[in-house]
Amino acid sequence: MQLDWLTEPAAPLNEPSRLTAEMRQGQLTKPPGSLGKLESIAIRLAAMQGVTCPTLDHAHIAVFAADHGVVDEDVSAFPQSVTLEMVRNFACGGAAISVLAQQLNATFEIINLGTVEDDESLQGVHHQRIAPGTANFTQQPAMTLEELSQALDAGRQSATRAVDTGSQIFIGGEMGIGNTTSASALACALTDMPADQLAGPGTGLNQSGVNHKVEVIQRALNLHQAHLDDSTKILCRLGGFEIAALTGSYIACAQKGVPALVDGFISSVAALVAVSINKEVKEWLLFAHKSAEPGHVRVLEALEAQPLLDVGMRLGEGSGAATALPLLRLACALHNGMATFAEASVSEKNG
Amino acid sequence: MQLDWLTEPAAPLNEPSRLTAEMRQGQLTKPPGSLGKLESIAIRLAAMQGVTCPTLDHAHIAVFAADHGVVDEDVSAFPQSVTLEMVRNFACGGAAISVLAQQLNATFEIINLGTVEDDESLQGVHHQRIAPGTANFTQQPAMTLEELSQALDAGRQSATRAVDTGSQIFIGGEMGIGNTTSASALACALTDMPADQLAGPGTGLNQSGVNHKVEVIQRALNLHQAHLDDSTKILCRLGGFEIAALTGSYIACAQKGVPALVDGFISSVAALVAVSINKEVKEWLLFAHKSAEPGHVRVLEALEAQPLLDVGMRLGEGSGAATALPLLRLACALHNGMATFAEASVSEKNG
Repeated sequence: MQLDWLTEPAAPLNEPSRLTAEMRQGQLTKPPGSLGKLESIAIRLAAMQGVTCPTLDHAHIAVFAADHGVVDEDVSAFPQSVTLEMVRNFACGGAAISVLAQQLNATFEIINLGTVEDDESLQGVHHQRIAPGTANFTQQPAMTLEELSQALDAGRQSATRAVDTGSQIFIGGEMGIGNTTSASALACALTDMPADQLAGPGTGLNQSGVNHKVEVIQRALNLHQAHLDDSTKILCRLGGFEIAALTGSYIACAQKGVPALVDGFISSVAALVAVSINKEVKEWLLFAHKSAEPGHVRVLEALEAQPLLDVGMRLGEGSGAATALPLLRLACALHNGMATFAEASVSEKNG
Repeated sequence: MQLDWLTEPAAPLNEPSRLTAEMRQGQLTKPPGSLGKLESIAIRLAAMQGVTCPTLDHAHIAVFAADHGVVDEDVSAFPQSVTLEMVRNFACGGAAISVLAQQLNATFEIINLGTVEDDESLQGVHHQRIAPGTANFTQQPAMTLEELSQALDAGRQSATRAVDTGSQIFIGGEMGIGNTTSASALACALTDMPADQLAGPGTGLNQSGVNHKVEVIQRALNLHQAHLDDSTKILCRLGGFEIAALTGSYIACAQKGVPALVDGFISSVAALVAVSINKEVKEWLLFAHKSAEPGHVRVLEALEAQPLLDVGMRLGEGSGAATALPLLRLACALHNGMATFAEASVSEKNG
């Protein structure tokens, strides 16, 4: 069981590149600051890539899928069979993230970490089955430490593949019926907020369904109360394989010096776990969007994150992050391609 | 002087296409509503294009430039020479909108309607000089009715070129030192809001500069008070050539059945004028972003518009609209390319 790698330092940011990128932004033919967040994104990417002019031509999208034992408590609007059905849909190109990956010309991979039913014959899927879903965490820990280690490592392996194929940005996605319940429970344990502040409709519960979900989460928090003093233990007791894999991928990305563009509620909870384990990871995270899932805004606050988009998305799969990627690419194109005042012979601001 | 065309009806939306697109959205493999605004955008575009599956491969970006007599009142952070200098920068590819147009593979045109200095030798610019800038509207009407008619028509001509070259969406941009003062004055006259609610820093005034701008606008509103009972007259007395051209382009786009993606503060004021003249235009407008210019949110409220992005941009040129275009394209790709539950054999929501 290898967890030591989680706390190894993140790659350093390149401060001279940040400064030259900042200087360049100040010289481009526009009022200072008038490109808003597109300016700060380009500058952060410059510091991450160690260049004055960053690029994001090569993006890697990895979707981690797994099932959740807590679904036995009737916490989802969709049946559990949907997890594997959607894995098939990812592989066949019919899911939102499949369409987005193709449009964005991104490397796309699917990692099945343990759906209840399995289909090893499925082409185009990394079959890294840990178990047929997690255990029901209202009754016992969601996973063993060995299983946790495997899930975290699956994330690290995906980040390694991203680096090895020359990707300049990593987008993690998730699929797992029941995983907003797991993510909400994790966020409660990590932030000490009550369950009713973090649990929401997920894929489409009504108010009575949400109330029941809150009660299920509260029951789990009570059961594991004595073991929630450490982020790794929290992840082990209340997490999911795909959430742990996301956590592992974010930590590994930071260590390898590749920015990760974080998707919505579940991905942000995985990022919160990652930052709780290794605070240096935060410098390497970019936040794509504010999800319509109500708990997301609280998780973003806990991360002091200001996401780029707020367009009411709440699908997961990495879809919000993929949707934000073109804005990051345009931020780079503007930063790199605009003329300076001197180059264009444009007069600068009065006085 | 021809203004009659302004009130001719807009093209009708295709309601059967809206319905089939709505049905399609409900069948795609995702929880209903989980793509947020990307769903409603795809449905609106379907109704506009009269198809179930809309596309936005061909975009037309037109930037209108002109100078403003009100700059004599010391209302801008940049010198007036910048308008023509930026026209040159647009043409040479160094401006933000030039970079964006290239990245988006859009048709790009620049229309000079009257900069104080001129350079007719400039390649790649439509030279449609009406006058060397508007008159100072604190002392007299900004333009004559004949000049207004020419400016509106320049917008219509641009929309016609967009249609003739097969463009599926129109993005208008503007450049004109002093034009936030003109746009703020127009918005005051159209909405009856006080100047201090609409005037802001523009390209970078400090608070004392903003206070002075408010006073200049108030002076102009007092002077023209007896003539502000009609949107066309308001545009004539307080507008700019580039703002009037945007207004004309939005009206013509609606009449020709091409959606216009509206940029920031100045473009939205032009859209407000267009809707005030011809309320049917509104159905054909999509709003790209909320600008950092503080008056924009009030203009958007007056238009009952919910823009897509809020990333602190305040550059103009059409840059915010161009930045939002990839999201509209992804909305179409998702709508058109995702599998239905039936196609992918994915189970639907419980009960």
